[in-house]
Amino acid sequence: MKKIALDQTAKFNEQAPKLFVLHESEYFKLINFNFRAGQTLPIHSHDIEGQLSITVISGEGKFLAEGGKTLPAKAGDILISDIAEKHGIRAETEMRVVVTIAPPI
Amino acid sequence: MKKIALDQTAKFNEQAPKLFVLHESEYFKLINFNFRAGQTLPIHSHDIEGQLSITVISGEGKFLAEGGKTLPAKAGDILISDIAEKHGIRAETEMRVVVTIAPPI
Repeated sequence: MKKIALDQTAKFNEQAPKLFVLHESEYFKLINFNFRAGQTLPIHSHDIEGQLSITVISGEGKFLAEGGKTLPAKAGDILISDIAEKHGIRAETEMRVVVTIAPPI
Repeated sequence: MKKIALDQTAKFNEQAPKLFVLHESEYFKLINFNFRAGQTLPIHSHDIEGQLSITVISGEGKFLAEGGKTLPAKAGDILISDIAEKHGIRAETEMRVVVTIAPPI
């Protein structure tokens, strides 16, 4: 059992999103991404089994999907995606998300 | 790919925590628990493989552990626990959490 406090990782980069691997086990991996307004996690996918969730902790932006599609993303929104499906994030304000990947990549 | 909006499940029960199964797949299960102040998810465990995370979305209380131990739990705190380890939650204010269980129970 361990506790992670996201207020300890509220750090940002000016050049690219800042990421912290919060946890990794044989069951899942947790990553915190912190974006400045305008930064993106470019749309991508990995050709492997599994799913991920992207939980927006604060701020807002868009979830990015195949074919230029977007979905509004704000605090309290969660995107579920297969790892093999195209997904990404674009921040419109300062934005913090936690990604859970199971099984871990 | 699907989006879940936690503002759609901001509902509470007076008698016991209100829960919503947000997602279930072969990879993980996501459950939203909403507590009124004073409500608890009593300490428990399941004798199976896997881990869970409890992400506090809003409010505050305590994470409950073996032997009466507690850890402060507030928005942005995440508890990681084996499913087989004793864990629970006590809300001290209105409190919302999302639990991810992998593999799903």
